[in-house]
Amino acid sequence: MKFSNIFFKKRKKTYLYEVLINLNIKNKKFFKNVLINDIKNLEQAGTNDITFFHSSKYKKSLINTKSKFIITNAQLSYLIPKSKTKLIVENVLLSVAKITDYFYPYSTNDKCENQFINLKKSKKYTNVEFGLNVIIGKNVKIGKNTIIGHNTIIESNVIIGQNCNIGSNVIIKKTIIGNNVIILDGAIIGKKGFGFFPNKNKNIRYPHIGMVIIGNNVEIGCNNTIDRGSLSNTIIGDNCFLDNQIHIAHNVKIGKNSIITGQVGIAGSSTIGNNVMIGGQAGISGHLKIGNNVKIAGGSGVVKSIPDNTKVMGYPAKDIKKFIIENK
Amino acid sequence: MKFSNIFFKKRKKTYLYEVLINLNIKNKKFFKNVLINDIKNLEQAGTNDITFFHSSKYKKSLINTKSKFIITNAQLSYLIPKSKTKLIVENVLLSVAKITDYFYPYSTNDKCENQFINLKKSKKYTNVEFGLNVIIGKNVKIGKNTIIGHNTIIESNVIIGQNCNIGSNVIIKKTIIGNNVIILDGAIIGKKGFGFFPNKNKNIRYPHIGMVIIGNNVEIGCNNTIDRGSLSNTIIGDNCFLDNQIHIAHNVKIGKNSIITGQVGIAGSSTIGNNVMIGGQAGISGHLKIGNNVKIAGGSGVVKSIPDNTKVMGYPAKDIKKFIIENK
Amino acid sequence: MKFSNIFFKKRKKTYLYEVLINLNIKNKKFFKNVLINDIKNLEQAGTNDITFFHSSKYKKSLINTKSKFIITNAQLSYLIPKSKTKLIVENVLLSVAKITDYFYPYSTNDKCENQFINLKKSKKYTNVEFGLNVIIGKNVKIGKNTIIGHNTIIESNVIIGQNCNIGSNVIIKKTIIGNNVIILDGAIIGKKGFGFFPNKNKNIRYPHIGMVIIGNNVEIGCNNTIDRGSLSNTIIGDNCFLDNQIHIAHNVKIGKNSIITGQVGIAGSSTIGNNVMIGGQAGISGHLKIGNNVKIAGGSGVVKSIPDNTKVMGYPAKDIKKFIIENK
Repeated sequence: MKFSNIFFKKRKKTYLYEVLINLNIKNKKFFKNVLINDIKNLEQAGTNDITFFHSSKYKKSLINTKSKFIITNAQLSYLIPKSKTKLIVENVLLSVAKITDYFYPYSTNDKCENQFINLKKSKKYTNVEFGLNVIIGKNVKIGKNTIIGHNTIIESNVIIGQNCNIGSNVIIKKTIIGNNVIILDGAIIGKKGFGFFPNKNKNIRYPHIGMVIIGNNVEIGCNNTIDRGSLSNTIIGDNCFLDNQIHIAHNVKIGKNSIITGQVGIAGSSTIGNNVMIGGQAGISGHLKIGNNVKIAGGSGVVKSIPDNTKVMGYPAKDIKKFIIENK
Repeated sequence: MKFSNIFFKKRKKTYLYEVLINLNIKNKKFFKNVLINDIKNLEQAGTNDITFFHSSKYKKSLINTKSKFIITNAQLSYLIPKSKTKLIVENVLLSVAKITDYFYPYSTNDKCENQFINLKKSKKYTNVEFGLNVIIGKNVKIGKNTIIGHNTIIESNVIIGQNCNIGSNVIIKKTIIGNNVIILDGAIIGKKGFGFFPNKNKNIRYPHIGMVIIGNNVEIGCNNTIDRGSLSNTIIGDNCFLDNQIHIAHNVKIGKNSIITGQVGIAGSSTIGNNVMIGGQAGISGHLKIGNNVKIAGGSGVVKSIPDNTKVMGYPAKDIKKFIIENK
Repeated sequence: MKFSNIFFKKRKKTYLYEVLINLNIKNKKFFKNVLINDIKNLEQAGTNDITFFHSSKYKKSLINTKSKFIITNAQLSYLIPKSKTKLIVENVLLSVAKITDYFYPYSTNDKCENQFINLKKSKKYTNVEFGLNVIIGKNVKIGKNTIIGHNTIIESNVIIGQNCNIGSNVIIKKTIIGNNVIILDGAIIGKKGFGFFPNKNKNIRYPHIGMVIIGNNVEIGCNNTIDRGSLSNTIIGDNCFLDNQIHIAHNVKIGKNSIITGQVGIAGSSTIGNNVMIGGQAGISGHLKIGNNVKIAGGSGVVKSIPDNTKVMGYPAKDIKKFIIENK
């Protein structure tokens, strides 16, 4: 779960008191002189980062974390080592969202950018072919022999490899794309995920500072929507082919050589293995693990993780032989 | 079911003979001097409006209507009070469609508008930020601090509130939008619904003179399609969040604080309550009533109305506990 | 299965040795002086065309083919008449794909075109109304009184009839459209189908040299994706109405007067009859035959062919009465 900040500008080191200003935490004033660099999870946090502990599943990481300041709730607080400072809140993840939003100020909205390259004057893209009305943001890197279709919008800092064929009416942001990739017309890649805390009258969005990473030789179909990750990234592995009207939610990771047919939806944070085949209109719930070489029949609704080398069908999806016998 | 005509220009008062000219009605010539203002349902019709009676369910309204001219069929005609003039046709709703189309001449097609503001010269939108290639029709109202993304098309008379973030490649027509609304890239809002009378060789479209009304703090996902109402309106309540690739058909009404996940479809004229959660790829048939606080599991197919505070799953959707036990 | 080449430029007659250069075939050098015109199936091939035999189902056509050069595999080769030259390969269809790609060099990618008409100077379309930023390729024919919406892209050689209403943000390529057709905003018509040979690290696309043919009085909904055929065509019959977010895969053929509701998906090479009604979100597997006057309930998953005059529901779809009784 390494993440890069090429897409999101982080605030500089800042006083912990400032970081916590919107949270209901006692004795914040003690932190007026403590400098904090970032918010990270237990494993990745350094000595200058704040971190969080929201489930006893992560006890091991808690003991090893380098961070000195740990957001947690009253029930879990007894597990925090005495050498650390505990910051007790009611809702840990909501607090994490607020702090992340503080460090990465533009990560909860997707307001369209207002700075672009003047393609007619730019000498940066001499080996790239552009359609009409293309909009390219600042610092976009595009490999040679790549084609960008009409009306397509590529936002700042996006990286696209060589020999790619990007269609028309495509929108790409917060995304890194390999070589020989085809992205078909109307695909929208890299917008923030559908992640928020439900809240009467005004839901609270949580930050999406992850990105979309697309491997080599990938094909992304027309009108697909592929959302970027929240803290981790959304990943489409090498040589995956996606048909039209597919929705890939935030943090989904798809292995190599997988084939996904039209109108499939994969909910947030699910992992798909290598050489997986998913039939049309199948749906996969969030936070599941689909093994390697799995085949999911069209129309299936997958609500449990699936081991390697399995064929499933149905809603809820089960072993395909069982499904066929039961439905004779 | 109040509806406004800010989007549809109605003909002026016109002779009933003209209104009926395309219908197979006897003795039309008697109506050469009768002036008619509009066509409305039994309850809303005034003394100068024509109305219609197509089902005995509406007997009560029939007795109280102010209208003097009532379209009906031969079977129902005996119920029309003697004080009224009955206009006997074979297919009441088809005739209503033809008359509505007569009064509102552009309500059955969605031909793209050919008149727009010159944004470079206009001084109307000083507090609005526009992307490139934006197309704004006549009399559009946009609140301050709202952003309109690249290539987005907003047709005449649309109203958008303050602090909204409209994405790129968005198309909005016949729609009124509240404050703090986010509409993500590629969404298409306000086109006519999929409503028509099947007819060999040439189906007959019926008019869609309703609109789309979107409340405050709403989020509409990428590539969503939200159709406007036919006679009533399509409504998305305050603080509803819709994920990507959702389809909302004409006349659907969604309450407040509801959350709809990716690729859900809601068929025409269904009503969704407050605080409803709908999982990915679920489908809801037309003309149903989904109560408040209902949870619909992803992939479900809802074919019956659902009472308040219920959790359902399956196709056809049933009580979630029952579904889980049956599918163990 | 007649197909025209108005969209795909075929190579001129060429030496068989050249045609086979990328295939692992013995004694290719013997074919240095043999001229070949095209690759066609057994029935359509002429004496100068190469053909292929990949299944014993086609024995009858094999005996009657005019072609003298037949691609086949080792197992089937004993069936080839002695008067013909057999060309033994490991994978017949993959070899056919490679040869087709050789004859039709641009049929496996959909790179956006870079030549267009200058609409401001052109006098070709005097009776056509164009929105802003429309992009029209070479040799496009558009009938009188047709309207083309904003930002719409119509690629070379497309034919559109009279009185059509093409929406905004629409993309049309390799397509022939009749009269009085409505194509709503965001539809993408005519891109290559999702057809390829799975292959580790780099799938091999097969050519799509078919087109999309749309009849008269058709309506195509918003954000629909309709892929062109591979060797045959994708066909939407007269007076078919398609709702929003529908996906029609390559080679699908739909009869007249059929009605398809939102978010339906039809997989490759299936045939749909006349007067068929398909409810929302239903899915139809590939290579099926759906008869005339069939009704498919919303949400159904159709995995078998359906005879004329049948109503089905469920996943897998079965007789609707049976489904309703079983699910009471």
